[in-house]
Amino acid sequence: MIAKTPPPPYYAVIFSNLRTEIEDGYEAMADEMVRLAELQPGYLGYESVRYGLGITISYWDSLDAIKNWKANTDHLIAQKFGREKWYAAYKTRIALVERDYGFEL
Amino acid sequence: MIAKTPPPPYYAVIFSNLRTEIEDGYEAMADEMVRLAELQPGYLGYESVRYGLGITISYWDSLDAIKNWKANTDHLIAQKFGREKWYAAYKTRIALVERDYGFEL
Repeated sequence: MIAKTPPPPYYAVIFSNLRTEIEDGYEAMADEMVRLAELQPGYLGYESVRYGLGITISYWDSLDAIKNWKANTDHLIAQKFGREKWYAAYKTRIALVERDYGFEL
Repeated sequence: MIAKTPPPPYYAVIFSNLRTEIEDGYEAMADEMVRLAELQPGYLGYESVRYGLGITISYWDSLDAIKNWKANTDHLIAQKFGREKWYAAYKTRIALVERDYGFEL
């Protein structure tokens, strides 16, 4: 569940969001977006959790990879529906991961 | 719950983690670390959610601010206990936020 990313540098897209109460295809869309993202060139992994606040972070090898994913036709439709019905608020942050370190029991 | 951060550039510390089953002061420590972080120079905000996987992101105005917070005495003790009893695994990523955009109903 913690993404196995390569050594930095690489990019993170941090998507922090609050849902509306409208389901209307949300879960199916979310699953499909994960499936499609994994097929994109430059995709490195993702982490996602929601408990009221939702945070989804996807990791990418370059800004170009992020731009291509943002412009993916199915993803554009999901973004449009996101603004129209699924999300009450969101913030997307595009960040260059410069350093990482971890720990595992 | 979505952090109100200033225009980029600024830094994000992404802390993705899995807990052990050991409570033993965890909640009190987590609350205290938020309280102390907010007092640190250069602190810009934070977002945190757990549902199995935990993701906590704190935002900072510089790498120096992050270094100072990492070296805070109480925070060092919390990091030590974190590795010894509270976390089964974690990954910390230090990332420069280059761009952000958002939406609110």
